[in-house]
Amino acid sequence: MDEVTAGDGWTREAAALTREWTLADFSAALAFVNRVGALAEEHGHHPDILLHGWNTVRLTLSTHSVGGLTAADERLAVAIDAL
Amino acid sequence: MDEVTAGDGWTREAAALTREWTLADFSAALAFVNRVGALAEEHGHHPDILLHGWNTVRLTLSTHSVGGLTAADERLAVAIDAL
Repeated sequence: MDEVTAGDGWTREAAALTREWTLADFSAALAFVNRVGALAEEHGHHPDILLHGWNTVRLTLSTHSVGGLTAADERLAVAIDAL
Repeated sequence: MDEVTAGDGWTREAAALTREWTLADFSAALAFVNRVGALAEEHGHHPDILLHGWNTVRLTLSTHSVGGLTAADERLAVAIDAL
């Protein structure tokens, strides 16, 4: 997409995998964040983690070094789904 | 500001306190998130927590029930600063 030039005020976002989970409460959401964090450390690959609205966690997986998705993102997503 | 009507495509964001911390690594950032989480549970008041870019934590404090800032946000901010 190099031929596309966005106007001022736009930021190009890299392709990413994103998914949101709603847990029972803040404590459950924070526990989920910690399980995801442990997996991320195992994988050496770290998602962006947003805990918002008290009990909801949104994960965003992408590979910053390539500006998009790689097999590392797919592997981490599969591992998180297995939690 | 009720007299101001934004055009389509705009979302009004409530007033909030926001601050960002950059830690040594993902593990340190996650530990910080847990300390903030424990404080939030003590206060019965929960910020939005974004762990992004591997080692950076952004907190956003506001009181959803009033759509803006209250003393509860100020108290939690002071407590977090004391961590």
